[in-house]
This record gives sequence, structure tokens and C-alpha cells, in this order.
Amino acid sequence: MSLFKNHRVDIERALEAVRKREFYEQFPEHPSAYDNEAILASIAVFESSNNKHFEGLLQAEPLQWSGEENSPFSRKDLGILYPTFLVDDLLERSLQAFSSWKKTSVDSRAGILMESLRRVERRFGEIAQSTLHTTGQSFMMSFQASGPHAADRAIEALAMAYQELNRFPSAVDWNKQAGRMQFRLEKEFLPIPKGVALVIGCSTFPSWNSTPGIFANLMTGNPVIVKPHPAAVYPVAVYVAEIQAVLKEEGLDPQTIQLAVDLSKNPLTKELAEHPSVKIIDYTGSSEFGNYIEALPGKTTFTEKSAINSVIIDSGNDLREIMRNLAFSLCLYSGQMCTAPQNFFIPETGVKGKDGEVISYAQVLDLLQNEVSALVLNPKMGAGVLGALNKESTLQTAKDALELGGESVLESAHIENPDFPKARIYPPRIIEVSADQPELFSREFFGPVALIVKTKNTQESIALAAKLAQEKGAITCAAYTSDESTKAEIKEAMNSVFVPVTFNLIGYIWVNQHATYSDFHGTGGNAAGNASFSDASFVNRRFVWVGNRSLAR
Amino acid sequence: MSLFKNHRVDIERALEAVRKREFYEQFPEHPSAYDNEAILASIAVFESSNNKHFEGLLQAEPLQWSGEENSPFSRKDLGILYPTFLVDDLLERSLQAFSSWKKTSVDSRAGILMESLRRVERRFGEIAQSTLHTTGQSFMMSFQASGPHAADRAIEALAMAYQELNRFPSAVDWNKQAGRMQFRLEKEFLPIPKGVALVIGCSTFPSWNSTPGIFANLMTGNPVIVKPHPAAVYPVAVYVAEIQAVLKEEGLDPQTIQLAVDLSKNPLTKELAEHPSVKIIDYTGSSEFGNYIEALPGKTTFTEKSAINSVIIDSGNDLREIMRNLAFSLCLYSGQMCTAPQNFFIPETGVKGKDGEVISYAQVLDLLQNEVSALVLNPKMGAGVLGALNKESTLQTAKDALELGGESVLESAHIENPDFPKARIYPPRIIEVSADQPELFSREFFGPVALIVKTKNTQESIALAAKLAQEKGAITCAAYTSDESTKAEIKEAMNSVFVPVTFNLIGYIWVNQHATYSDFHGTGGNAAGNASFSDASFVNRRFVWVGNRSLAR
Repeated sequence: MSLFKNHRVDIERALEAVRKREFYEQFPEHPSAYDNEAILASIAVFESSNNKHFEGLLQAEPLQWSGEENSPFSRKDLGILYPTFLVDDLLERSLQAFSSWKKTSVDSRAGILMESLRRVERRFGEIAQSTLHTTGQSFMMSFQASGPHAADRAIEALAMAYQELNRFPSAVDWNKQAGRMQFRLEKEFLPIPKGVALVIGCSTFPSWNSTPGIFANLMTGNPVIVKPHPAAVYPVAVYVAEIQAVLKEEGLDPQTIQLAVDLSKNPLTKELAEHPSVKIIDYTGSSEFGNYIEALPGKTTFTEKSAINSVIIDSGNDLREIMRNLAFSLCLYSGQMCTAPQNFFIPETGVKGKDGEVISYAQVLDLLQNEVSALVLNPKMGAGVLGALNKESTLQTAKDALELGGESVLESAHIENPDFPKARIYPPRIIEVSADQPELFSREFFGPVALIVKTKNTQESIALAAKLAQEKGAITCAAYTSDESTKAEIKEAMNSVFVPVTFNLIGYIWVNQHATYSDFHGTGGNAAGNASFSDASFVNRRFVWVGNRSLAR
Repeated sequence: MSLFKNHRVDIERALEAVRKREFYEQFPEHPSAYDNEAILASIAVFESSNNKHFEGLLQAEPLQWSGEENSPFSRKDLGILYPTFLVDDLLERSLQAFSSWKKTSVDSRAGILMESLRRVERRFGEIAQSTLHTTGQSFMMSFQASGPHAADRAIEALAMAYQELNRFPSAVDWNKQAGRMQFRLEKEFLPIPKGVALVIGCSTFPSWNSTPGIFANLMTGNPVIVKPHPAAVYPVAVYVAEIQAVLKEEGLDPQTIQLAVDLSKNPLTKELAEHPSVKIIDYTGSSEFGNYIEALPGKTTFTEKSAINSVIIDSGNDLREIMRNLAFSLCLYSGQMCTAPQNFFIPETGVKGKDGEVISYAQVLDLLQNEVSALVLNPKMGAGVLGALNKESTLQTAKDALELGGESVLESAHIENPDFPKARIYPPRIIEVSADQPELFSREFFGPVALIVKTKNTQESIALAAKLAQEKGAITCAAYTSDESTKAEIKEAMNSVFVPVTFNLIGYIWVNQHATYSDFHGTGGNAAGNASFSDASFVNRRFVWVGNRSLAR
């Protein structure tokens, strides 16, 4: 309870931000806001952790130690070994921890979880560097995504859960007068957790995509088993370790959260997911596996799956500024963000510019490829913005992208990262397809591939983007138009398939970014997933309201 | 909007009751609170409606007129004919209505729906009499369940939806300061309805089980197709007709809600449920069909399925009072309420009474059968409490109940309803089984069958009741104990399988009753269904939050 008192104000601030959807950061996103020495020391901790056992987890004696992380930058195995366990043992320990965790008060849970994030904060440098060497993100993105952004998304889920768990009074004196008769019942309303929760991580955003599920589950009283992607364990292992440490200090079972590492040659995910004791599953990854997860009977699932995000270009005052903005969105982490744009719908009749001027289709393409090239080849920007490709198959997909058809508009440039000469780099290539080739633009090219879809007009662009989102899923949509009625049309069409639209972004703000506390991430309404960070259902579906009654004496 | 102004105070009162879980009725439950002449006139409307076309629906020209309602009391066909349509036509009209309904403001929707309930209120007598002659409920239960209780559950869902739809601000001016840069986005947050909603009714509570889904769907912007059970159409048709009337008056498409009647020999339910345009399904009925509904891909489902409710008897001050209370619960509508108790777990060592006295197992059974017999054979009470059996198969199930095994404790009495000599009546029979015969007490006997399960002790009673609830589903549990630690044990065990427990009821208040605004109906946590009337998920899962952003100029 003392931990709750320490953090109550922060929880209330987060709640207010969530309610008002305002700008808010509990953890500043820029490294410069933190003590530089501390960040450097934290980075050094990671560097010295290679080729060793991962330290700090408070879990039972492992079956063995193993790991397969390999840096997309240095291309070296990190050699960090994590404890591994049998699925049945993990479940047994989780059920054991459940018995005390479900009885821990909501306030205590909130205090413990907020405290653990403050501990994680001291390790943001370590988390950033480990994210860089597992995901291929640049240091800046690694820092932000796995550090402050992941921690703020955790608080967002925590705050939403805190609000919902306190939604109804725990005790009610219920009085009913019926004629001359008086009935009185003592009622209590309890939010009962559903049970063991499995959080399945991904290799590109190992912390960010996992913290909302982890914190939503723990806040609502469910014990958690975190099954990270075997290629990206470290960044989330730090969160697990810090939560375990605080649990232990508070006299609770540290195995209320467990890390369950597996190897790609011997995956545990299905065995865990199908275990009858697992009641809740959070999953980020491919649609194929996500659909399998969603179809498992008797499980409450929260998924984020493949998405094909569209850009609709109708009109705009400064096409060059627009293309510069989009080029950055495309290049950022080499298109490996789930919010990165893939398909650019551009009318063959061109785009309306300032004062009625028309920029031809060819000119628009030219502007886009120029801006992409300029960014990629900028020696101060290129390598940093692109990062590295997370895995070999992403590179292969990009290399094979022309196999099915389409015309090359821009080939991938050859650039090097001076800090990491062996880094797996492949800057975005741009391919042109036509509106009557849906088989070409209806597949996800995860990574550095952009498709230009040449359409008859903006109406066709809208129709195709909406149909695609409904069938294949989309997390976001960027649109450029100076025309209010076209704006309304785009909104109506994309919103009706549950895709948010961002209009007319230029400058240093990009469609890829979703602000915690304000922007929902994913809507849960289309094929890109069934959950949203963090609406009320993201927390409410993890527990059940049960009301007991007693005749008052 | 004017309708909203008329009803705003009522909506706010309902919301406050929901929040505080207090006693509240917007529609008084007792007929005496209404103008008697009006009620009688309303009943007469139903009586004169037999053997005619049902009037008042504002739907397209039907394919044909048909109906198969038959009174469980008079055993006569009602001869009321309803319009029938092709599934594709129903969907086309629903999608057409969706285009205007989704653009109707939340306030307008709330006003229209509250106004429609006030119109329904004038027809409570008609609804009661039609419920009696389709379900087999007594007049008092028919009045309460299909009239005020169904209308109050509708408002409860409406209020919950109203709150959730207004949860986030519609417009936000979002400002972010990053270094010397200032970013400003205009954001909007829209609750986007999922699409056409199908509400599948049941034959025992045709209004009560359907109004929450109907009102939750309409409030959240989804058009509704109501597919009543062919044996019980009238009570819900009145709700549909009154909503349509108000929609038309407000210049909206009355087919925003449609009645889709079918015949048991030519059911439309699967064709409707599987139609790709149907996005949301509310279902009440058997587990078999409910499991099929839940497994349909791409649908958001809300189900209430079979339930086997338990009574755990450990101790109590006045066993006779307890048994009198339970006898009423058992006899009320002949055990055809989804909240009716079926299995009575009683320790072979007997039950602790007042001052340490032990009432033997045999005595407890004796008290129960005496109270059941006394109630059933009471000429002023019996027929009225029992009502009639809804359908022939319910009678057959009760008659065959001993086939698999068990010992008869009390046979069904032969009684007559003087008003309806042909009524399908079969008072509850009581069968004794042993704790090691789970195959006998793990099946649902829907209707007038109670099982006594003889257990070693209360611990075994609790374990069996919890296991049964988890595997087969339960909506409620009644328990009697004077011991605080046993009370806690029962609560813990039953709550952990998401069953609410009602303790120590005696007198004129029964476990079967769940109070609107205060008691949740169903938890959605076990095999008895995946939904709860009405928690936040009951409304939130019907729409999706979508946030649009525009760079501020």
C-alpha cells in the first residue's frame, strides 16, 4: 500500500490524460531528458552482458540455459543465455502465484507495477542498446520505443484497468420497498481475474508490443507468462526482472510474472497457448499465427496481426513537403513498423497543388523517389533512419518483391552504416502497380517496399484502400487533401472499416507515430487485429464482474 | 433532439443507479402501479388480435404471412400471422437503414429509444397477456418479465452505452512541445458501430432476453434484425413496432429495426447468422446452438446458454423457512427460468440448525418435499406459481428424468389450473442421486426437475458445484450457511468459476431474481454464456473507437 501512496499522483495524472486524450508523457521520450552518465552506464551493462547468463530473474531453477539473439547490426550472436522451463512447470508456478496475486488489492497491484516501471526507467540505456542489437532499430528509436514509449503504454493500460476495476462499488446496501414489505440485501461486486495470461512477443518491438498486455493482465489480477520472440528477449526480460524484484520485496510470489524463453527450432508457443490453464493470450505477429490464436476455443485473445497501410494522395499545397514527410515514414526503421505506409494510391490524372495547379502523376512519383533517395543517401541521416533489417526473410521479401509483377520506380540504394559495416541494410524500393492488379498490392511486404498504385481518380483510391483494409487489415492511413468534402469521404470510407486517418502531415511529425494516452493503437475492428491499446475492452475482457448477495440480518 | 430533452433526466437517473448498483425501477414492477383500466384495455387488444395479421410493423411488403404460436395454457393456436421476408432482403434493408442510423447522434438515439419504451409501457397489458399465451408464464410473471423488467433492462443497456459512447471527448486540440518545435494536431474520437446486429430470441423470455441486446445495439448505432423464437413472437414484436413508430416520426428509417419471423419447419437463424453482413449476434438458447454461434468467424457474439444452477446447504437457523424459500424458487414458472436452481447439494451428515442442533439428511429432504407439495397443492398458489410448461419437450424431459438413474424423492403432483383446464402442467419432481453419479447431475433438466445430490460434507458440495459450474455453466448459486468461514469458502470457489452466490435467502425474495441496475445477469465467465447484462463489455464490443488526426493549420 505504501508503494501505491508513492505513485498515486502519477496514476491519477495518467488517468486524466487517458480520459482527455491529451498530450502526456510520464517518461520523457528524448534521451536528453535523462542523466547522460546514467544512460551511458546503463548501456555499458548491456554491452558487458553478452556471452553470459541473463541475470536478475527470480524464477525457479531452470531446465537449461539457451538463447539465439543475433544483432542485425553487428551480425554477431549476442551469446546471452536465458533460463528455459517445461510448459507444465511454468503453468504450475503461475497457478501457484495466482492464488496470492488475485487476493492482492487493486491499489497494491498498481503501486507495485508503477514502482517496477520506475526501476525499469534506470535501465532505459540498457534496454535501448539491447533493442538495437535484437530488432535492428536505431538507438534513438530503440530508446524511445522500448523505453519511455513502452513504459507509458504500460501505464496507459494500468490506468485504464485501475479505472475499470474501481468502476462499481465493492459493497452496496440494497433496499427494496414493495408494498409494506422491506427487502434488504448486502451486495458485493468483485472483479474476478480470468486466470493465467500468456503474452507472446514479436521480434521488432519486443517491449513496446508486450508491455500493454503484461500490465493490463497484472493490474486485473492475472499472473503472466511472457513468451518473447527468441530473437528479441532482452528488452522485455528487463521489465520482467524488475517486476519480479518489486513483487519479492513486497512479500509476493515473484513468479506472478515469468519469462518463458524458447528457441526457434523448438518453439513452446503452441504448447503454451493450447494449455487448458492459459485463459488469456496477447499476441503480436503474423496474421496466420494470429488467426490460429484467435480461433483457440475458450481463450480471451488480444491480437495485433499483419497490416497493409495505405496513403491516399488527392491534393496538397506543397507536394515536395508532403513527399518528404512520406519518405521519412517509409524509411523509418526500413518500413518495419506496423504503422508504416506500404501502398500509395495516386490518381493517373495527377494531384491538385497550390492555386489549382496540377502536378502530374509522373511528377508526383518523381518527387517521392527524389525525397526517398535524398534521405537514404544523406550521410548524416540515411543509416540512422533506416536502422537494419530485423531478419533475413525481410530482406529476401524485399529482394523478391518484383517477382509477381509491377514496374520498378526506385531500386534499393547501396548504403553503409559506418558504425556497423556488416549491418543488414536494404533501403526502401518503390514499385508501381496498377489499380487492376489487386493481387500485387493486396499482400503485405513487411519491410522496405513501397507500392505506388495508379488509380483513375481519388474515388478509386479511396475505394481500393477501404476494401484492402477490410480484407487484409490496416492500422493506420495517411491522406492528403485540401478539399473538405474529399476529406469527409476518406474519413467515412476508412473509418467504416475501422481505420483511423491522419490528414495532411508535413514536417517532423509522421503517420507512424501514435501518441500514448491520446491515440489508440489499432482499433481491433479489422483484419489487423482484435484489440486496441488501450480501450476499455483491452482491460475489461481480462476479468469478470461477479456480484454476491446476502440477506441482511 | 427534443426527444432527448424529454428523457434526459430519466437517462441520468438510470446511469446513476447503474453506477451505484442501487435499487431502482423506472417502470414499477407491480401492475397495481399502473392504471387498471388501461391495463385491461391493453389486454383486450391482445385478445382481439388472435387469428389476424399482426398490426403496426413498419416493414416492407412481406413475402407472406405466417405464425405458429400456440398457448401452453389453452393449447390453442393463436393464429396470429407475422410478415416474413427473404434473408437477403432483410439484410439489404438493414444496410440501407444503417447509413442514416450511424449518423444519428448519440443523444437522438437515446431520446428515440426512451420514447419508444414509454410507448411500450402503454401496452404492458397486451405484452403480458401475449407472454402468458406464448411462454406459459403466469400473468404476474408475464407482466413483470416482459413489461417493466424487460424495459428496465433495456434502459440499463441504453444507459451503459450512453456512458461509454461519451467516454472520450469528440474533439481534442493536441499540443506537443519537443525542444523548440511545437506540434499541433486536431484530433477526433469517434465510436464507429460494427454493423448489422442479429438478436435471436428464446421461447421462455421473448422480450426480457432480447431487449438488452436490441437497445445496446441501437444505442451504439447498429441496425437490428430481431429473429424471435417462432413460438413466442408477439411480446417482442410490440417493442419492435413501437421503436419503428418513433423512428418514422423522427424522419428516420423505421427498418433500422426489423422483425424477422420464421417457422420451426423452415428456420432462418443459421442463414441470418452466417450472412457476411451480420456482424453482431445476441443469442439466448441451448448450449449446442450457442456454441455454434460463438464459433462463427468474424462475428461479435453475446450468448446466454444452458445453465445448471446449484444450491449448497450447509447450515441455517430455520430449515423450514429455507426450504419454503427454495420450494418457491423451484416451482416458480416450473423451473423454466435460467436462474432456477436444479441441483441441491446436501451433506449425508445432515445440516446444522439453530443452537448446534443437527437436522438429519432425511429430515432436510422431508422438509423440502413437504414445502414443494404444500406450495403446489395450495389451491390459491399452486397453479399461479407453476404457470405452464413452455413446450412438449420440456414435459417429456421431466417425465423421462428417472431413465438414467436416481431415486424418486417426490413425484410430480397432479394439479389443474381452473382457468385453463388444458394447461400443460407438471409440478416439480425431486430425484435423489449420489455424489459419485456426476453423469446424473451434470446434465441440464430444463424445467420441473430438482436433483438432490447426497454428499459427504459441505466441502464436497462446494467442490462438485464449482466443477459443475465450470464445465457446464451456471448463472447463479444459492447457499445457506451460518458459518463465516464456510461462507468465504463457497464464495471463493463459486466466484472463481464466475458464479455469483446468494446467501441465506428466506421470505419473499428468491435467488431466481436479479435486480436490474444492481445485479448483473450472467457473468459471461463460464459455460453458461459469454455476456453479462449489462457490464461495459456488453456495449463496448458493439462499436470501435477510431481516432482521426489532422495537422492544425
